[in-house]
Amino acid sequence: MPVPGPGYAITARVEVPASASAAGDLTMAVGRVGGVVTAFDVVESHTATLVVDISCNALNESHAEEITATLEALPGVTVRKVSDRTFLVHLGGKLEVQSKVSLRNRDDLSRAYTPGVARVCQAIAANPADARRLTIKRNTVAVVTDGSAVLGLGNLGAAAAMPVMEGKAALFKRFAGVDAWPVCLDTQDTEEIIRTVQILAPAYGGINLEDIAAPRCFEIEARLREMLDIPVFHDDQHGTAVVVLGALRNALRVVGKEIAGCKVVVCGVGAAGSAIIRLLQSNGSGPGDVVAVDIEGIVHRDRPGLDDNLRWIADHTNDEGLTGSLADALVGADVFIGVSAPNLFGAEELKTMARDAIVFALANPDPEIDPAVATAHAAVVATGRSDYPNQINNVLAFPGVFRGLLDAQARDITDAMLLAASHAIADVVTEPNPSFIVPSVFDAAVAPAVAEAVREATRQKDVAPV
Amino acid sequence: MPVPGPGYAITARVEVPASASAAGDLTMAVGRVGGVVTAFDVVESHTATLVVDISCNALNESHAEEITATLEALPGVTVRKVSDRTFLVHLGGKLEVQSKVSLRNRDDLSRAYTPGVARVCQAIAANPADARRLTIKRNTVAVVTDGSAVLGLGNLGAAAAMPVMEGKAALFKRFAGVDAWPVCLDTQDTEEIIRTVQILAPAYGGINLEDIAAPRCFEIEARLREMLDIPVFHDDQHGTAVVVLGALRNALRVVGKEIAGCKVVVCGVGAAGSAIIRLLQSNGSGPGDVVAVDIEGIVHRDRPGLDDNLRWIADHTNDEGLTGSLADALVGADVFIGVSAPNLFGAEELKTMARDAIVFALANPDPEIDPAVATAHAAVVATGRSDYPNQINNVLAFPGVFRGLLDAQARDITDAMLLAASHAIADVVTEPNPSFIVPSVFDAAVAPAVAEAVREATRQKDVAPV
Repeated sequence: MPVPGPGYAITARVEVPASASAAGDLTMAVGRVGGVVTAFDVVESHTATLVVDISCNALNESHAEEITATLEALPGVTVRKVSDRTFLVHLGGKLEVQSKVSLRNRDDLSRAYTPGVARVCQAIAANPADARRLTIKRNTVAVVTDGSAVLGLGNLGAAAAMPVMEGKAALFKRFAGVDAWPVCLDTQDTEEIIRTVQILAPAYGGINLEDIAAPRCFEIEARLREMLDIPVFHDDQHGTAVVVLGALRNALRVVGKEIAGCKVVVCGVGAAGSAIIRLLQSNGSGPGDVVAVDIEGIVHRDRPGLDDNLRWIADHTNDEGLTGSLADALVGADVFIGVSAPNLFGAEELKTMARDAIVFALANPDPEIDPAVATAHAAVVATGRSDYPNQINNVLAFPGVFRGLLDAQARDITDAMLLAASHAIADVVTEPNPSFIVPSVFDAAVAPAVAEAVREATRQKDVAPV
Repeated sequence: MPVPGPGYAITARVEVPASASAAGDLTMAVGRVGGVVTAFDVVESHTATLVVDISCNALNESHAEEITATLEALPGVTVRKVSDRTFLVHLGGKLEVQSKVSLRNRDDLSRAYTPGVARVCQAIAANPADARRLTIKRNTVAVVTDGSAVLGLGNLGAAAAMPVMEGKAALFKRFAGVDAWPVCLDTQDTEEIIRTVQILAPAYGGINLEDIAAPRCFEIEARLREMLDIPVFHDDQHGTAVVVLGALRNALRVVGKEIAGCKVVVCGVGAAGSAIIRLLQSNGSGPGDVVAVDIEGIVHRDRPGLDDNLRWIADHTNDEGLTGSLADALVGADVFIGVSAPNLFGAEELKTMARDAIVFALANPDPEIDPAVATAHAAVVATGRSDYPNQINNVLAFPGVFRGLLDAQARDITDAMLLAASHAIADVVTEPNPSFIVPSVFDAAVAPAVAEAVREATRQKDVAPV
């Protein structure tokens, strides 16, 4: 059952008859229809009336309207206006560009701009590597999307993707001091996307691809990695894989199993699922077996119509040649990792898994299995949601990963670096238990630990498996 | 004779024997070889020695080396290191990206990022005009270059152009609160530049083209203006034209002439010269006549080999069909505007101009005529340099122009808006005199006046001439 969250928070400005019970009347009315009051402020006080701002969390738009209607129905109450706090946060956008140099007088201007700047330009022209020293390239990442797979919302296009990319850039700064800039491309042609990023690349120290639909995202990433001298990271793939493998490392500690003996079912083989499988398989000593499942059932070598991505997965998973449905795959599995769709299975299938089953049901907002059901039968459960324990959140990975890459002036990104990042996330939790396998996104130790692990991995090539 | 300027400032850290005369010895030594001391700081004080930082302006690199050698030659003095202050200012780049929203806790995250942000994306997808309300588009300009004409330095490419574009972005913020972002394109193909800007455009409220070589810049600007729903401004063209026309307005006031009766010679028909001519001619009541001159002499209708740009100029100037050299053009001219090359003429040609001649010699760093010579024979002289009166500096125009365009949510930019901006710059100077025809770039009244004029011009279509 969903609960009202801060993603849908409203503030209603209401006029009420002045009385000792005014605050209680209003908050109780909101509570009666299921709203959660988060703030109450008197903004004007008159002899006969009060004007108050009452803020509350709602479930969705119609629930917010129900709350407003309930307030208006109270005797003597007038609702002056209702503000949606999420939209208020977004007014005018979420980023600004600041100068790091002072421009108080003519001398400042002469150094930061003409004529002084000419020598800096000439130095970079003579030695292009100086761009990492004398321009923002040193600390700046492009957050690139074509708007084709915005959150779970689908193909909304470049302009509508901006709020997500701005938010991402804000998180980069907040958690790792990385300057990130939203680059929303008004094209969904693979070749144009690749060429545009190549044309823009000289100004950036790294590329974070975001919300680009599969399978296009695979080719774009592979080709850009080939052509650019800066790291290219697709957060929907690698960010998710890093956090999932970190969580899995701790979940295995909790149940006392080794990855090498485990059967892992990965449900969903889009960007995230494919990257999880590839990172699991990137080291010779990965899981005992991985079984991939998509909407057509288990991925196996003889399944017709496999594209390049599915062909690779078929060739590298499912050693036993299983066929059938998700339910068939789950029998005897130690680990379920879902990055797919809501409500795909229940207690019955879960009970066929091996003892001490680990269930990561990451479909958003509704997981592959009801978390309450999963918790009753599995040893460790994780979701993508913040209202259950063990939230798998990419914010744990991407800020620290790019902090490390930029610090090391890395020219590419390897599976070894990604594995190192996943270990670092896991190891921030010193004593994992079933309700605590990943650190909080607000744990200030995470990004520095991830950054250090990535810097270290740029210096050595081999990293241990999960 | 050039003087040491802050564009070439060094700081030397030197160890000197402790004595009452140490400071005097050092500063006098710098002065003897023509350096200008700007700061002197003791950083360590020991019994027998002092360590001091001595900062001074130099002429150029070899002069800085001469100053250093002079210091080292003093008895007992050791130079520990010499820092170039211009390079110090550029370390790590000049811009950073800041979040405007707080991300202190999970509720903040839920509103600025998932899940709350999803509703904002959907709102923009449903109503694209909301991008100007709910994203950074409202206040953000792309500073776009292909690095083909960086300052006066030529074709340095994308990476080496970054320090200029970063500086420009810093000025946008400093003078008008505009968020600007450097977009340095690693291509010099006209079609690719146009297509790339089109692909990037949805995130921006305006495009400032910068340091793109002529004649490519004309086609890029014209085509982008045609295809985009945001204003496109080429600063090397329009920014320069706006400031020049503003300065001309006041210069004419000083000498008591009307533009309609004047003969104006424009020397140099690249980006700046062409735009000056077009803006002069954009109003039915422009100058009496304009004569354009380039490296091949006077532009006239029968000159062979005219490209599209020169053809337009030939068709719209030189009513009398003059031919010949710059010297021929200057005879009887009221106004000379040079945006071309150093040292093209002297007192002899200047004396053939009409009485109370106005001379704008804007070639950088060395003007078309020695400013001292010009001042001796002309009524009003302006240059592009900060060490003479009447500096023609684009910083007077572009911040306020974009402030006005963004505020008005303008979809294009017209000559009427550019003329209005030029009037606003001129009118900040209430009592112009020969040494004061443009305001200081640090005059805080300029950008708001320009912005207001542009906002006003977006509402009405006709603006008076110079």
